[in-house]
Amino acid sequence: MPKLTPWLDIPSDSDFSIHNLPFGIFSLPEAGKGKRVGMAIGNYVVDVADAAEEGLFEEMQFDYGVLKSNDLNGLIALGKEVTGRIRLTVQQALCDECSVLRNIGGLLAAMDEVTLHVPIKAGDYTDFYSSREHAFNVGKLFRDPDNALLPNWKHLPVGYHGRASSIVISGSEIYRPNGQIVPDGQNHPVFSPSQKLDFELEMAFVIGKETRRGRPVSVDTAEEHIFGMALFNDWSARDIQKWEYQPLGPFLGKSFSSTISPWIVPMEALEPFKMDGPEQHPAPLAYLRDEGKNHYDINLQAAIQPDGGEEKVVCNTNHRYLYWSMAQQVAHHTSNGCNLNVGDLMASGTISGPDPGSLGCLLEITENGSRPVTLGNGEQRSWLQDGDSVILRGYAESEDGIRVGFGECKGKIIAKV
Amino acid sequence: MPKLTPWLDIPSDSDFSIHNLPFGIFSLPEAGKGKRVGMAIGNYVVDVADAAEEGLFEEMQFDYGVLKSNDLNGLIALGKEVTGRIRLTVQQALCDECSVLRNIGGLLAAMDEVTLHVPIKAGDYTDFYSSREHAFNVGKLFRDPDNALLPNWKHLPVGYHGRASSIVISGSEIYRPNGQIVPDGQNHPVFSPSQKLDFELEMAFVIGKETRRGRPVSVDTAEEHIFGMALFNDWSARDIQKWEYQPLGPFLGKSFSSTISPWIVPMEALEPFKMDGPEQHPAPLAYLRDEGKNHYDINLQAAIQPDGGEEKVVCNTNHRYLYWSMAQQVAHHTSNGCNLNVGDLMASGTISGPDPGSLGCLLEITENGSRPVTLGNGEQRSWLQDGDSVILRGYAESEDGIRVGFGECKGKIIAKV
Repeated sequence: MPKLTPWLDIPSDSDFSIHNLPFGIFSLPEAGKGKRVGMAIGNYVVDVADAAEEGLFEEMQFDYGVLKSNDLNGLIALGKEVTGRIRLTVQQALCDECSVLRNIGGLLAAMDEVTLHVPIKAGDYTDFYSSREHAFNVGKLFRDPDNALLPNWKHLPVGYHGRASSIVISGSEIYRPNGQIVPDGQNHPVFSPSQKLDFELEMAFVIGKETRRGRPVSVDTAEEHIFGMALFNDWSARDIQKWEYQPLGPFLGKSFSSTISPWIVPMEALEPFKMDGPEQHPAPLAYLRDEGKNHYDINLQAAIQPDGGEEKVVCNTNHRYLYWSMAQQVAHHTSNGCNLNVGDLMASGTISGPDPGSLGCLLEITENGSRPVTLGNGEQRSWLQDGDSVILRGYAESEDGIRVGFGECKGKIIAKV
Repeated sequence: MPKLTPWLDIPSDSDFSIHNLPFGIFSLPEAGKGKRVGMAIGNYVVDVADAAEEGLFEEMQFDYGVLKSNDLNGLIALGKEVTGRIRLTVQQALCDECSVLRNIGGLLAAMDEVTLHVPIKAGDYTDFYSSREHAFNVGKLFRDPDNALLPNWKHLPVGYHGRASSIVISGSEIYRPNGQIVPDGQNHPVFSPSQKLDFELEMAFVIGKETRRGRPVSVDTAEEHIFGMALFNDWSARDIQKWEYQPLGPFLGKSFSSTISPWIVPMEALEPFKMDGPEQHPAPLAYLRDEGKNHYDINLQAAIQPDGGEEKVVCNTNHRYLYWSMAQQVAHHTSNGCNLNVGDLMASGTISGPDPGSLGCLLEITENGSRPVTLGNGEQRSWLQDGDSVILRGYAESEDGIRVGFGECKGKIIAKV
């Protein structure tokens, strides 16, 4: 991959290099600018809507209306041919001293002055459970240690429907949920604030091309339907979840909030970081067979920051640890004829790795609260306390130092009065 | 309830009496009329959008734009004060010989000439599991007969998130899903068309007033958030469901399609049919305590019609059999701070009653296929075959013959090539 040289000063460790250029929705209320499409570059946001009006895309034909929108759905629905060309046009303009981006004022906004919004309108949100280590560890703690991985797990990417309405943007407060929990040693539930509040380090991807009901997607063509990726924290109340989840799965233990990072990194930017997945035994059924390099080498990290304190990294893991690829997830999801819409979100499930330091949630890190983790200020945590923030980060990096990152996915726990 | 006398001829057994007046979305393509809001009356549809332009609502102030829309969400979001007044205005006009509905042509369309569409845009769809008989029967067949009802069931309205994208309008074809199933006596799955395709007789309700994240709704005020009700068939592939559903609940066994009836009956029309619910032991926790008449006396029926054959009624049941009320479902759903949006759909789960003839799905009726049901043409069914149609119907009726019904919720199974 040839390195590009933009005229803009971009910190060498920025997630938002010239090779990334993710899409998001931002506003600048004081400038009278409503929600609109932006692209992140270094510490700036390209105002794609205003740049279009200044003629940046004059050689393309599309309705600029999709750029002044509350979400990316309209833009994404134009297809990868259009969004890919928009991205390349912006990339070239950021390397071209004569471009309108350089020579017309106001087309770049400082990142710390804009407000970022949930970038997509998810009609449906699906959460998978595709990390073998996570499924094994949870099975061990929640059910039978001798049969931790259920018989279906290696045959299909287990998943469930999640709640789309409560997906919030990084930085939003997370209200500690109330719910039914059964105190240790008792048989009957009480209604109480959750005492076992947890994060889940996940990544999500956004559907970019719709499918029709009754029309499955093959593994080979699944990536045509994936627009891009983001960080995702699927906050979980383990005590609520444990009592409610049988037989129909997680519900209120998850639905109080999920946090998404603001920038959707398009798959084109992640292409250099594709890799083979793990060997799959038993071999999946034909409709799930994945011959390509459909896994991604993306470093992931979770940190906990107590109120006013320093961050402590509690997990270093990688997207490559997932057993099931996104292509397999899409193929499975549509195998029964279920239709997908642009903007639908699919998340990985907690991504844990094989090492003790690579566990993606406190349930696993603390072994269901029995081995608390020590934070930077010396305090211990079995579960999240009010005032704690959780920060997820992720980036891919090539050997020659090209970095494509996701920024932060952050949320702070607030006691609900 | 005083009987009203419309000038329009309405069959005495019509679901769409002058006391009903449900809302839907229809189109009349040949008349150049795009999707718009209609209200059903007898065998006609009131063109609410055109009626507004003719001055029917001249004493009200609202944006008529919500009446020319692909869905009812915009109208519903105006609030019950507005939608209730629209309904009463149409009701009065249908009893007033001098009204514009009578004297201006084209404001009533014959029901059999319009195309009906999915009436709401559901951001999220939740399916409950609130019939004790159904939960018990399924638990007996799927799990342990001695512990059919799981310990949590009587403490909370068990529910899960469903797939919103594949909700289709009555009359749409239902494609038999493919999926992983484990043949009897084997341990490994094969990929195959479902051999155990089932219907589920349910009712759904539509959220009419949004809530904010972190703001629970009490049982007492829950009905303020419910706009109206419809029939709902949550088609299920029992073999796919059985293999996939642990530990995260039903997924592809349900997500291929659900069918909704076209007309949303507003709660105002159902007010006369409210009744006490069953006694609940153990008493629910305080946040779920329901003192009011929050259950509804609605007769429900399911029939199976083989291709070209006659209908055979296979179930007569009633909404009153539900253990958990809709108000309790809303209170539970929001108890953790999960926010609701206008247009969100919540379904009851299969509604079975105590009698053998009141079981709401084939899984129960045929005892997991072991006792086939005989159709009108003498054919037997353990599960649905290609070409079979399932028709759900429902109505409430007062002692003095006032009828408020839901029309049909119909779907036909098609082999997917």
